Amino acid sequence: MSKDAHIVFTPSGKHGDFPIGTPVLTAARNLGVDIDSVCGGRGICGRCQVVAGEGEFAKHKIVSSCTNMTAFSSVEERYASKKGMKEGRRLSCQAMIEGDLLIDVPAESQVHKQVVRKRADVRQIEIDPPIQLHYVEVEEPDMHHPSGDLERLFSALKAQWGLTDLHCDLRTLQTLQPILRKEKWKVTVAVENQKTIIALWPGFKEKGYGIAVDLGSTTIAAHLCDLQTGNVTASSGIMNPQIRFGEDLMSRVSYVMMNPGGDKEMTTAVRESLDTLIGVVADEGGIERSDILSMTFVGNPVMHHLLLGIDPTELGGAPFALTLNSSIHLYASELDLNISPDGRVYILPCIAGHVGADTAGVILSEGPHLQDEITLICDVGTNAEIVLGNRDRLLACSSPTGPAFEGAQITSGQRAAPGAIERIRVDPETLEPRYRVIGSDLWSDEEGFAEATKSSGVTGICGSGIIEAIGEMFLAGIIQTDGIIDGSKATVSPRVQSNGKTFDYIISDKEPIIKVTQTDVRAIQLAKAALYAGVKLLMEKLDVTTVDRIQLAGAFGSHIDVKYAMVIGLIPDCDLERVKSAGNAAGTGARIALLNKKARKEIENVVSKVEKIETAVEPKFQEHFVNAMGMPNTVDEFVNLSKIVTLPEKKTGKAESLDDQGRSRRRRRR
Amino acid sequence: MSKDAHIVFTPSGKHGDFPIGTPVLTAARNLGVDIDSVCGGRGICGRCQVVAGEGEFAKHKIVSSCTNMTAFSSVEERYASKKGMKEGRRLSCQAMIEGDLLIDVPAESQVHKQVVRKRADVRQIEIDPPIQLHYVEVEEPDMHHPSGDLERLFSALKAQWGLTDLHCDLRTLQTLQPILRKEKWKVTVAVENQKTIIALWPGFKEKGYGIAVDLGSTTIAAHLCDLQTGNVTASSGIMNPQIRFGEDLMSRVSYVMMNPGGDKEMTTAVRESLDTLIGVVADEGGIERSDILSMTFVGNPVMHHLLLGIDPTELGGAPFALTLNSSIHLYASELDLNISPDGRVYILPCIAGHVGADTAGVILSEGPHLQDEITLICDVGTNAEIVLGNRDRLLACSSPTGPAFEGAQITSGQRAAPGAIERIRVDPETLEPRYRVIGSDLWSDEEGFAEATKSSGVTGICGSGIIEAIGEMFLAGIIQTDGIIDGSKATVSPRVQSNGKTFDYIISDKEPIIKVTQTDVRAIQLAKAALYAGVKLLMEKLDVTTVDRIQLAGAFGSHIDVKYAMVIGLIPDCDLERVKSAGNAAGTGARIALLNKKARKEIENVVSKVEKIETAVEPKFQEHFVNAMGMPNTVDEFVNLSKIVTLPEKKTGKAESLDDQGRSRRRRRR
Repeated sequence: MSKDAHIVFTPSGKHGDFPIGTPVLTAARNLGVDIDSVCGGRGICGRCQVVAGEGEFAKHKIVSSCTNMTAFSSVEERYASKKGMKEGRRLSCQAMIEGDLLIDVPAESQVHKQVVRKRADVRQIEIDPPIQLHYVEVEEPDMHHPSGDLERLFSALKAQWGLTDLHCDLRTLQTLQPILRKEKWKVTVAVENQKTIIALWPGFKEKGYGIAVDLGSTTIAAHLCDLQTGNVTASSGIMNPQIRFGEDLMSRVSYVMMNPGGDKEMTTAVRESLDTLIGVVADEGGIERSDILSMTFVGNPVMHHLLLGIDPTELGGAPFALTLNSSIHLYASELDLNISPDGRVYILPCIAGHVGADTAGVILSEGPHLQDEITLICDVGTNAEIVLGNRDRLLACSSPTGPAFEGAQITSGQRAAPGAIERIRVDPETLEPRYRVIGSDLWSDEEGFAEATKSSGVTGICGSGIIEAIGEMFLAGIIQTDGIIDGSKATVSPRVQSNGKTFDYIISDKEPIIKVTQTDVRAIQLAKAALYAGVKLLMEKLDVTTVDRIQLAGAFGSHIDVKYAMVIGLIPDCDLERVKSAGNAAGTGARIALLNKKARKEIENVVSKVEKIETAVEPKFQEHFVNAMGMPNTVDEFVNLSKIVTLPEKKTGKAESLDDQGRSRRRRRR
Repeated sequence: MSKDAHIVFTPSGKHGDFPIGTPVLTAARNLGVDIDSVCGGRGICGRCQVVAGEGEFAKHKIVSSCTNMTAFSSVEERYASKKGMKEGRRLSCQAMIEGDLLIDVPAESQVHKQVVRKRADVRQIEIDPPIQLHYVEVEEPDMHHPSGDLERLFSALKAQWGLTDLHCDLRTLQTLQPILRKEKWKVTVAVENQKTIIALWPGFKEKGYGIAVDLGSTTIAAHLCDLQTGNVTASSGIMNPQIRFGEDLMSRVSYVMMNPGGDKEMTTAVRESLDTLIGVVADEGGIERSDILSMTFVGNPVMHHLLLGIDPTELGGAPFALTLNSSIHLYASELDLNISPDGRVYILPCIAGHVGADTAGVILSEGPHLQDEITLICDVGTNAEIVLGNRDRLLACSSPTGPAFEGAQITSGQRAAPGAIERIRVDPETLEPRYRVIGSDLWSDEEGFAEATKSSGVTGICGSGIIEAIGEMFLAGIIQTDGIIDGSKATVSPRVQSNGKTFDYIISDKEPIIKVTQTDVRAIQLAKAALYAGVKLLMEKLDVTTVDRIQLAGAFGSHIDVKYAMVIGLIPDCDLERVKSAGNAAGTGARIALLNKKARKEIENVVSKVEKIETAVEPKFQEHFVNAMGMPNTVDEFVNLSKIVTLPEKKTGKAESLDDQGRSRRRRRR
């Protein structure tokens, strides 16, 4: 009797002794080593590739060599010639043990592999999708032992994959018999949560796909993902067609209130656009709609309700009651989405009437609930959603910032598009501005700027541009602590101009004239004060005076220079190094929920524990709001910020009364 | 402190001591006494009515009186004036204990009440439907504690009804907010399996309904049932529209094979008819479609597959593979059935390729698996389904009897309709017949027969009539043991007439002439031999030589005189007292599954254990078949039958050879 061989797997370090002739995959399974397989050891899927270590491994007391495995088999030859295999790789289901081995399982051969995200400061996505593909060979029917085709498929899945108590969706059932017979009783099935057969294909099917959707009021973004690797195969965006019913959420809710059946119109519109978008990403990814097995959604409560076909009227007024805040799991067909006939939809939970599944997505992506540090997350749009806390407590609220941050209601405001000023600096001495516009890397005082911006022109200021403009104007002393444009600066530069009652600051005097007016500053002050007041409310509830890190989510948060956000007092003081853009964190949350089933439970649990604060009924909100009208704030110190920028002396003018009012109100309430 | 009162509930006998002032319902709940309630003790539903005993109950050592309860309350007054209450009845949720009481809970106040079936020989139906109605009062939304309306409904259901881990279907969710607000946060919800909210109504809703459907190849029968009482509120039948694609199952399967898309045509046809039928029974029952929460179906495998939208082609040829044999649970909308938007469908399991959910329904209704006695159940149609066994073992098969029993391919055969001969007697001396036709109670030799049948005429023989005709012809010696019409009888009566090669028996010589030909006898012989051979096969497998009781299911089984069925050897010998018609047992099975959730599990378990015999591959089937061609049988004795009727001496003619062949084949195989 030959001696057993000693096998060590890396990176897990799991090891054990196995008889000569044992397939490497079997040894791995016995030790609980994480190796992927769709075909169940038939040498078809190529998921179980491994590499043998070469040489002496003193730590493990073995000498390993690829010659301690059986020679490259015909099955492997076939696979390699079809799909290609890297030098040294073996299919662990085919290679059999012939001596001691150190076996490395590369990341791509692991079931629970991770998707590397670009940002280093966030957790990685572990791939563990609710839907798994399994290749099986099914017994043919036998008149001597009559049984249904489905029941024999169940038996095969039990014997070959250990799956029990299965059932099968109707649309899939309707195609079962021809598909089983097409490739001689060999099929690949998609099984959800190890319980439900939701799709099947004749023979071996390599990949299943899913789509993560961020359903925004303005744009809808979809990411087609390979459910096995987690890779984004295609991404696309589309305008939300509901815009024709109203630019912002409240105008859409009003539309429903004024127009019976308006909710159904908007539901139909968004579902049709989603279906178009599915087609776009499927085409781009070179796959069939029927390959798409699952979709996940994030979106604010109004988008969430309209997607589900629920009238959002109740969200339009106090007490802002959601129909439901739980997550929801449906057939895609229930939302008229044409993917695999029994494809599934998962919608993340909402948090409160103004804090939706988008915020749940942000939390899942940024993971404040996994840390000891206090994280502040702001997702800034027409409404700002604010999350604050750590693993012990998490609080959330929304604050009505209005459309100013999106460039709306700003004199020279425009959408972020070529020609829009996105960066600006103001010389504190001369008050001369220099700026960059979207579409060119040159500053306006650099050579070639005029040429570079000839086609786009300089057309306005986008949301991030207006933050910098006001921040720089404040640092240059053009704007006072109280937000008043200081008319006395008109003597320094003709760029400060009177328009009668108040003053404007002229950034560009060529047509179209680009300027910042007192009204613009007020609009931004109101918006930033609303956000800051929400943050302060949560900080007070959490009983903290500082935050350890700040994540700015959403398109606006991705583009602003966080320094200026702090200069104008949009966000509280914090080490600037710890203030980051979280990018489209909501969409990332949808993608995590698509790719990892435990993440769904996780966000459901977290959301159920989040403390929801309704700013509208919090007596202190107004006080914080008034204080936050000041630049950066009438009462709060910005210690960290002061180390980096020289904040001007406090100077106020006509707005002094506002500040006074704030303080006196606060006193009265205390 | 007042002494506790002693309370005894009947019929359960449960008893205990309770403080003065305890509501009677609360006392009952504490003791686990079975009392119904939908409104949760609010005096609305009237389900919890009880009666106090009067006088001394020595056994319980109490003196009970209705005066030992609080006086009839205003809530009870209101209920009684609206809905009426029998004298002496009290709402147990309102009546409070003031002294010792014997409380009787009438059957209609029990949750698990039973529906009394007309037949004494079958088990009663216990009412325990998967869907229950619950009235709840829900908290209004509160901005200080934001939560979804659904989550507050869940909380109310938990607090008021102990229901946990609930979820809610989408269509119901879409109507949640307006319904909650309509009657000030009071709603009635329908909850399936204590888990899923599938419907809701503003305020108090008294009743929910379900429909049990027997989906036959020829007719579709639907029974609308009150889910609380189990009563059939309305019944209706409709022709199966698939008949236009083929009279019998195999011609429908052929239609699919010849016409691509033919399965979809037939699926659409049957679903549309079902939807019409739903409308008919809803109208008849005076209810809305939205009040129908659940449907159950039985049907043979081809009907089952076509209902589900599954191509039945595989059922048309060996190995007769079912797509699935498990039970199936769906949204009614998945079958295009317009009942409550989230209404459910349950389809009973199939047994094998030729033994469908209709047979499962028969088993559930007749309960052979609950008894020690060996029961034989035959459901006779174009195919006969046969079930044999007891609590230890149950076997099933189908046998291709052909259409003869339905009067098809019989010279004077016709459907059971006015004018059809259904009863017949033949005088063994004179060979004169007398008969009765459907539509009249008079025999043809009774006065007034001509008058009574004037409008219908005497038009033919229905299926049960042909059994009697052949049975009587055999008993009168007109038909020999081998099935040959004895030409020598032509000398006794002109009613036996030569038609050249063989002889006919003339029942009526008026136009239309009604007769039984040699071909007719052969057709019936083939049909009954097929059935009997199947029975014999199962008896052999079960290793029994006799059965204890026989149940004949289906329309044919309901109408034939079981004596003649035995005389011609359709069924094996048995005490005639133990041979019964089971009526529409399949439909009853559907109704049981509608009304009792445990029955669903029960039939799923039983079916999974049934031993399926495929007659087509059983070598002994042919031998049994040949033996069964004889009248009543070439080899089997009919001991019990002989005690009641005088069976003729064995007499054979030309068909001797057939009999010989049978015997010799049997010898060879042994």
